[in-house]
Amino acid sequence: MTSRRSFIRNTAIVGAGMGVLPNLASAMYITNAKEELNVGLIGVGLRGTNHLRNLILRTDVRITALCDVDPERITLGKKLLAEAGKKAPAIFGKNSLDYLNLLALKEVDAVIIATPWLWHTRMTVDAMKAGKYAGVEVSAANTLEECWDLVNTHEATGTHMMILENVNYRRDVLAVLNMVKQGIFGEMVHFRCGYQHDLREVKFNNGKQPYGGGVEFGEKAISEARWRTEHSVKRNADVYPTHGLGPVAVMADINRGNRFLSLTSHATKGIGLHNHIVKNGGEDHPNAKVKFKQGDVITTTVDTANGETIIITHDCNLPRPYSLGFRVQGANGLWEVDGNRIYIEGKSESHRWDAADSWLSEYDHPLWKKYGEYAAGAGHGGMDFFVLNSFVESAKANIAPPMDAYDAAAWSAVTPLSEVSILHKGEPQDFPDFTRGLWMKRAPYNWMKDTY
Amino acid sequence: MTSRRSFIRNTAIVGAGMGVLPNLASAMYITNAKEELNVGLIGVGLRGTNHLRNLILRTDVRITALCDVDPERITLGKKLLAEAGKKAPAIFGKNSLDYLNLLALKEVDAVIIATPWLWHTRMTVDAMKAGKYAGVEVSAANTLEECWDLVNTHEATGTHMMILENVNYRRDVLAVLNMVKQGIFGEMVHFRCGYQHDLREVKFNNGKQPYGGGVEFGEKAISEARWRTEHSVKRNADVYPTHGLGPVAVMADINRGNRFLSLTSHATKGIGLHNHIVKNGGEDHPNAKVKFKQGDVITTTVDTANGETIIITHDCNLPRPYSLGFRVQGANGLWEVDGNRIYIEGKSESHRWDAADSWLSEYDHPLWKKYGEYAAGAGHGGMDFFVLNSFVESAKANIAPPMDAYDAAAWSAVTPLSEVSILHKGEPQDFPDFTRGLWMKRAPYNWMKDTY
Repeated sequence: MTSRRSFIRNTAIVGAGMGVLPNLASAMYITNAKEELNVGLIGVGLRGTNHLRNLILRTDVRITALCDVDPERITLGKKLLAEAGKKAPAIFGKNSLDYLNLLALKEVDAVIIATPWLWHTRMTVDAMKAGKYAGVEVSAANTLEECWDLVNTHEATGTHMMILENVNYRRDVLAVLNMVKQGIFGEMVHFRCGYQHDLREVKFNNGKQPYGGGVEFGEKAISEARWRTEHSVKRNADVYPTHGLGPVAVMADINRGNRFLSLTSHATKGIGLHNHIVKNGGEDHPNAKVKFKQGDVITTTVDTANGETIIITHDCNLPRPYSLGFRVQGANGLWEVDGNRIYIEGKSESHRWDAADSWLSEYDHPLWKKYGEYAAGAGHGGMDFFVLNSFVESAKANIAPPMDAYDAAAWSAVTPLSEVSILHKGEPQDFPDFTRGLWMKRAPYNWMKDTY
Repeated sequence: MTSRRSFIRNTAIVGAGMGVLPNLASAMYITNAKEELNVGLIGVGLRGTNHLRNLILRTDVRITALCDVDPERITLGKKLLAEAGKKAPAIFGKNSLDYLNLLALKEVDAVIIATPWLWHTRMTVDAMKAGKYAGVEVSAANTLEECWDLVNTHEATGTHMMILENVNYRRDVLAVLNMVKQGIFGEMVHFRCGYQHDLREVKFNNGKQPYGGGVEFGEKAISEARWRTEHSVKRNADVYPTHGLGPVAVMADINRGNRFLSLTSHATKGIGLHNHIVKNGGEDHPNAKVKFKQGDVITTTVDTANGETIIITHDCNLPRPYSLGFRVQGANGLWEVDGNRIYIEGKSESHRWDAADSWLSEYDHPLWKKYGEYAAGAGHGGMDFFVLNSFVESAKANIAPPMDAYDAAAWSAVTPLSEVSILHKGEPQDFPDFTRGLWMKRAPYNWMKDTY
């Protein structure tokens, strides 16, 4: 076994140079797993194409179908597959519901859904009904009813779904998870996280380029500005909670020994998007008349069953550098991503921060130790390699993924719950218990293995 | 005028070496001001004695009376005055109410109250009734009724009070206030602040030394552990909001064009103090049986009339380095004290933080520019010099202080309001409008002058 492992590890490292990764999990641990996974991609915009590029590098994945209503994106996807010497996929997208025909294909085992948010739950539900192992981009659901749809369909069909939260695989996040699991922080007490990302040039473009160059959104824009910006017009809510909340939920064993109980949420005034339009398009631009409901900074505080609190921030409409604002705090100390620092009682100099770096490298996650060099080439600092690897291996084995329907539901529920709370000046909103009590019995997923 | 200013500035700098500061405000701007202020100190524990040491350095202050129920503290205070060649003060403290006799003295113009929290409002109210300009340590009040007592007594008597919030005078805080006032951040949107200070060795000692060495509190302890810890036993609330909130309230023009509307508050479980007792005193120590009501991390979110939100943190029972966690965010950019960084659109490199230092020194507050060198010797990084200077000059002129009864009430109200909100899983609590509507008309205090 040892020699086989080192063989595989060495192969992986050699493979990195070639952009090819061996079929690790099935070779090593899982006996009944498929050798190859047939994947259909529903949505090949910027995000779906990124997944496509990464999947092409795998020898254990066949891309058997592509679906997109934009013919240009299909053309690009076909081209990438052809250039890699892959078989031409079946093509869908003649209308918005053509994805149902993709889901009917026998040659699709699993689908990856990377479409506008309002399609996520519908497509994931239909995929599970069709017996396809479903991966869906974040957030997974827009309403509480949709959260329940994910859970209920998973339970009714027995088909798995995975929310493709890539930040759960960020190197620092996994190192800190390792520290949490090893008890370095002691009993967990408090978490902070959020999505703090100046998206003004994502929410507006000139209809030609995906980022900026103009202040159009909706029909006159392309890419995310075509659909995402409408959520800022219509909803005063944390519409994008999972990049921060996903990692924290895993550290806090949410749905597996713990759960979200309730939240309160507050929004500031919303001036950032209007200011951006006026500054870049002028006061007379028609979009200068648009009223944006979304507050610029939205702060949500969650109470958990185990007595922790979690602060989630959504801050996407103002000028600022990117930060997910993580803080992970326990009885023995804490990590703060802002300032890149860690303090552990009895280890750190009293009342002084350590730079986080040496801690993070000491507790580097086994996955990153093993595949970090390979993954670093796959975009987003390698997170995307790991989240896809987990998806593909889980789907091949047809086992529950690390982030499942209950997680997708609980994390995504922050959007509708925050919306109601904000509307009532921070009135507490209860989370549904999407596990129907099973959170008390469910064991944590084993995040600490070195395979996927 | 110019030559006179530079004369005074030079004198100040020369004075620094001698520990003597000239009588600035009365010499320069205020014509009806007293030349000398007779000050009585009520409470000369660690904090009061610190004020005493700083006041001794001033030529415009006479310490005419000291009050403390602990004879050892009186002995020390008298000794310090004698060593400085000052006249012996009148002494009070034969019982808890002897401060009333101090307040009856004609030779007291103003008092500084640095006593346990439960005495703050009582003594401040009595001081105003006695016509003494009152300075009170933070927090100023423990209950909503006490908040009203401060406001109502101020209005009924016409006597001023000042909450002695030293952090409002921290060099970085005043530089950022300068940036706010000059519009560098644009329209204000969001603030964060708090008191994040591992106080375990303040809350417990061995009855001999003020900090640590044992796990006693209450009768068996001395200094703050004698009275402060009881607030952690009895109250699940942010019992100490003003170090963070004071500076933010000034930046947000609270009670002067803006006001706090409502808050929600959440507490984590409380394990830090119990763990500390067990670790340092053993499981069998009687205090290991004490149930502490206070959660370890308390998070409060405030909505303001102008559409900002303010997050306030109280984090004093767990191992961690000190931080007040400031964040000041507007339409053009933000300051974060954690990470020591600033981003201003159009000035900073796009999507990149600037180190805060060059911004903070460019916008160094006129007070710090002028008196920074002198102040740096007075303890607490000089903050205490400035807050006392403001108190003394305001009292000499008998004018409204920068932080008045309305501020003391609004800031301190966070304690009782957070307590009720926490008890009801974050139910929103309305702030009383302590100004009875006058916040709409009151002009901001002029914080940007270079005198006090």
